[in-house]
Amino acid sequence: MSPRLRHLTSLEHLPRATIERLLDRAEAMRDACAHGTRKLDLLTGRTVLNLFFEPSTRTRTSFELAARRLGADVINFDLGLSSTSKGEAMFDTLHTLEAMHLDAIIVRHKVSGTPDELVRHAMSGVSVINAGDGNRAHPTQGLLDALTIRQHRPDFHQLVVTICGDVKHSRVARSDVHALSALGAKEIRLCAPSGLMPAQTDFPHCRLFDNFDSAIEGADAVIMLRLQKERMTATDLPDEAAYFQHYGLDKRRLALAAKGCLVMHPGPINRGIEIASDVADGAQSRILEQVGNGVFVRMAVLNEVLGR
Amino acid sequence: MSPRLRHLTSLEHLPRATIERLLDRAEAMRDACAHGTRKLDLLTGRTVLNLFFEPSTRTRTSFELAARRLGADVINFDLGLSSTSKGEAMFDTLHTLEAMHLDAIIVRHKVSGTPDELVRHAMSGVSVINAGDGNRAHPTQGLLDALTIRQHRPDFHQLVVTICGDVKHSRVARSDVHALSALGAKEIRLCAPSGLMPAQTDFPHCRLFDNFDSAIEGADAVIMLRLQKERMTATDLPDEAAYFQHYGLDKRRLALAAKGCLVMHPGPINRGIEIASDVADGAQSRILEQVGNGVFVRMAVLNEVLGR
Amino acid sequence: MSPRLRHLTSLEHLPRATIERLLDRAEAMRDACAHGTRKLDLLTGRTVLNLFFEPSTRTRTSFELAARRLGADVINFDLGLSSTSKGEAMFDTLHTLEAMHLDAIIVRHKVSGTPDELVRHAMSGVSVINAGDGNRAHPTQGLLDALTIRQHRPDFHQLVVTICGDVKHSRVARSDVHALSALGAKEIRLCAPSGLMPAQTDFPHCRLFDNFDSAIEGADAVIMLRLQKERMTATDLPDEAAYFQHYGLDKRRLALAAKGCLVMHPGPINRGIEIASDVADGAQSRILEQVGNGVFVRMAVLNEVLGR
Repeated sequence: MSPRLRHLTSLEHLPRATIERLLDRAEAMRDACAHGTRKLDLLTGRTVLNLFFEPSTRTRTSFELAARRLGADVINFDLGLSSTSKGEAMFDTLHTLEAMHLDAIIVRHKVSGTPDELVRHAMSGVSVINAGDGNRAHPTQGLLDALTIRQHRPDFHQLVVTICGDVKHSRVARSDVHALSALGAKEIRLCAPSGLMPAQTDFPHCRLFDNFDSAIEGADAVIMLRLQKERMTATDLPDEAAYFQHYGLDKRRLALAAKGCLVMHPGPINRGIEIASDVADGAQSRILEQVGNGVFVRMAVLNEVLGR
Repeated sequence: MSPRLRHLTSLEHLPRATIERLLDRAEAMRDACAHGTRKLDLLTGRTVLNLFFEPSTRTRTSFELAARRLGADVINFDLGLSSTSKGEAMFDTLHTLEAMHLDAIIVRHKVSGTPDELVRHAMSGVSVINAGDGNRAHPTQGLLDALTIRQHRPDFHQLVVTICGDVKHSRVARSDVHALSALGAKEIRLCAPSGLMPAQTDFPHCRLFDNFDSAIEGADAVIMLRLQKERMTATDLPDEAAYFQHYGLDKRRLALAAKGCLVMHPGPINRGIEIASDVADGAQSRILEQVGNGVFVRMAVLNEVLGR
Repeated sequence: MSPRLRHLTSLEHLPRATIERLLDRAEAMRDACAHGTRKLDLLTGRTVLNLFFEPSTRTRTSFELAARRLGADVINFDLGLSSTSKGEAMFDTLHTLEAMHLDAIIVRHKVSGTPDELVRHAMSGVSVINAGDGNRAHPTQGLLDALTIRQHRPDFHQLVVTICGDVKHSRVARSDVHALSALGAKEIRLCAPSGLMPAQTDFPHCRLFDNFDSAIEGADAVIMLRLQKERMTATDLPDEAAYFQHYGLDKRRLALAAKGCLVMHPGPINRGIEIASDVADGAQSRILEQVGNGVFVRMAVLNEVLGR
């Protein structure tokens, strides 16, 4: 059995068995809730702290729900954007929180690598869970995306997945690729306009496309990334309508994918920019299933790092 | 028996039996707490989310206390004022929250009708409770005002109530009128300066006054509304002192009402603008009883929509 | 036995027996947690409200953790800095909160004396705990500092303590002096640059120094205060480097103190201004023990005012 995780900062280098254990545990959480269990007492008396240096109501709420469903207490440590954002001051904050005997810190920070720095500087037994750092990793998103796909397409040896949008700056794309590669996906395709295309060396096992029609052809799942509007200028596309025309997911394009192709997006969606409303709300959309799985995956991760 | 409510967005069209059931349940909650019960386990394992697009610490805290006293978990979903405030984006937020398996959403929004829009767009079994929408409704305030009056003047067939202030923009006035009418109040009088006077057609069963001395004469209860200071200009009164002189409640004016007339205000009060300090703090003031009843009414409403 | 406290607004005038009871109770809380107890059910069903008019994530979080470890519910009442900050409006807020049947209010306010004003205006059985008011008092900080010292230097008759920095504006210094004096400390020395030196009459039993080398000589514990950078101009020292040279704690200066002198700071520290990093992180530093003791002291205080 792969060893229990103390922290979760990235999916990179995680063994397949660990990822599968987390997904299996998330399924077990889902089953328990489906059968009417509203509270599991697995983490009663434990305290989890949300340390968000970037605002994210959705992800913070998902973690908060996950922790409470396991019986843990949750503290939201609200930091002004100006304060305690880096360097020594951040580590002093970490040590202060450790001294208060918190069990886990869920951290989001715009600087890549911050969660690993917290792990390196931690002095006590606190667990660090990455809720998104810079462009680098968003491991619970990678897990929930893999879980959503596995629920519909369990045979990963046959699986072709297309990830489209601002791949270059996307921690979601990186964590998705790590999860899907570890689970043995047949082919992962990345599609982006030139200014948002990452280096091939960053994604050695992926196929890179700049033409979305080609990238989606025959795909079993397509994961649309959120476009940060301030990055429009990097796309060489004059406006949002042009972006949508070239890199948006609409019905015509979805028809090029494999039959029943799963439509996914980490949210919140920009309707008419990355994705047409009728596709986002259509029969093939798994966007809300992703949200539901997010809570179960976070329950699994919290139980992994804090459970007995 | 009137059917159990799934949502509470307005008191309009609610049958008298439903309103009476909610008030009776609130009284039962009050009795339990008076006898030392600190936690009722009626909603253990349920999760309630506060979705406030307008700030309101008092009402949010009252709902949070009510939910916790019933054993529910409470999540505060803090939205920046700029984000997710309307249209598709708001419904996407709703669906995201539903996908996380929340049991109830308590919503406050400056746009009238938002809670009903959420009900129409809800896809799962989530309950929506209106904590105030625009000028339209504040149903738990209407219930707590009715409960406070009923505790002192149970015979509504004899009841004369005067509501004074910015009636035109007041969701409190609307919900009060709905509750008191349904419970059979003898007479409801509305009093406002001309610029803040609603159309008679909006309040067909009420008597409209622009002279507060006439409006308060013989009243059993007087509900003073909070003046938004930015609406002073609509009153044709040159300043706050003049407003108070014409539409403020002081001792002289209170003496025109029926003996023991109940003095009420939804809070927070503007002393010396709507109400004189000695009246707000005087023996006839029920303002703090209203606050206490607010928690019990919200417990009753949460139990109505979420209880088994 | 000294009578049970209903409120804790200051340590001034508290009998030694009461302070010792609180420290003993804090030790008992620490022992219970060290033996694996994660939740004490001493305050189940009680509700504690954080009413912070000044931001302080650390102290708020410490109180929140303390309350939850005792089984209480915690409400964070977030006030905009502009609203409800003084006078009648603040008492109206107090009465509103009392009417909601809260059990304790933890208050921080920039105006000295605010917690006592709340006690005077309270109408019900609510307990008020001061989390810091102006320059006046921060009683739980005084207790946690005394506890930290007692754990290492239990014989207060031999104890020499030096408090250095912006003594004039420091509520921490005032509460430390009250606690240490009550417990019989042999000598308390205050050290500050001239512009930050309090009047001798404010600290009649302390020795005042403007030379830190003299003040620290032979001290058993040194408590460094946080410098508010906007007060630099009052120091007659041209810049932070000069402040550190005259009033910062570095290794050379620490060597003048008694062997094993305890290094303390209420946090958050300004490295290189009040204290050198190698001293803050060194073997004699008790700064993180102070943080840990802070939670236990606050558990003891909450149990004192709310327990049965």
